[in-house]
Amino acid sequence: MDPIDLDDVLATFGDAWSPRIVTRVNDYDIRLARFAGEHVWHVHDDTDEFFLVLDGEIEIGLRDPQERVVTLSRGQVLVVPKRTFHKPSSKEGASVLLVEPAGTLTVGDAHDEVPAHVDVTTGHLI
Amino acid sequence: MDPIDLDDVLATFGDAWSPRIVTRVNDYDIRLARFAGEHVWHVHDDTDEFFLVLDGEIEIGLRDPQERVVTLSRGQVLVVPKRTFHKPSSKEGASVLLVEPAGTLTVGDAHDEVPAHVDVTTGHLI
Repeated sequence: MDPIDLDDVLATFGDAWSPRIVTRVNDYDIRLARFAGEHVWHVHDDTDEFFLVLDGEIEIGLRDPQERVVTLSRGQVLVVPKRTFHKPSSKEGASVLLVEPAGTLTVGDAHDEVPAHVDVTTGHLI
Repeated sequence: MDPIDLDDVLATFGDAWSPRIVTRVNDYDIRLARFAGEHVWHVHDDTDEFFLVLDGEIEIGLRDPQERVVTLSRGQVLVVPKRTFHKPSSKEGASVLLVEPAGTLTVGDAHDEVPAHVDVTTGHLI
């Protein structure tokens, strides 16, 4: 039960779209990810997903149901509701804190073809 | 489903120990609180509690079971496990993001006498 410095965790990895599990709150993960370029359209059937931009700027494509894109800067948050297709991206790169149930897959329960640069994972322990 | 700026939310209130519910992830709250001075020793029987310092510095007294104090600076996180008595404080003031189940009371399920400056609440909607 010691404090964890998010910058220290970020310093341990450089790969985008490969979230690290910083800690757990009950059965929820607190994850840290680098975003760079484009993720993939995907949907979580059973869970919302929380994004907090710690550094940089990200876009999240949404189909709710009309397709649109929201932009989040440092210090801004968004919850993507369950059953909403979304596609995160970042033009210049960003670091993002995520909150979601442990076991949630990065590409959700349905998704477009996953490009090689996207890590299909439930998160990596630090 | 629009981004929320945490600084904008912080600008709407000045009172310490009175968390605002910024958004919800399934049945979890994302709360934002100002810390200043001392909270109260308390314990949550059934839930962990997540702290992320957005600005300033905080201390969290812990009885696990020996009493000790951990200090968190900006960008540092801590999870206080369920059934661990704890007492947050901040000498100079701080803003903190909290993650915990909706309905979680600020003073937990058991606590010392609550001082007047501590808001007994499950969080206020923004």
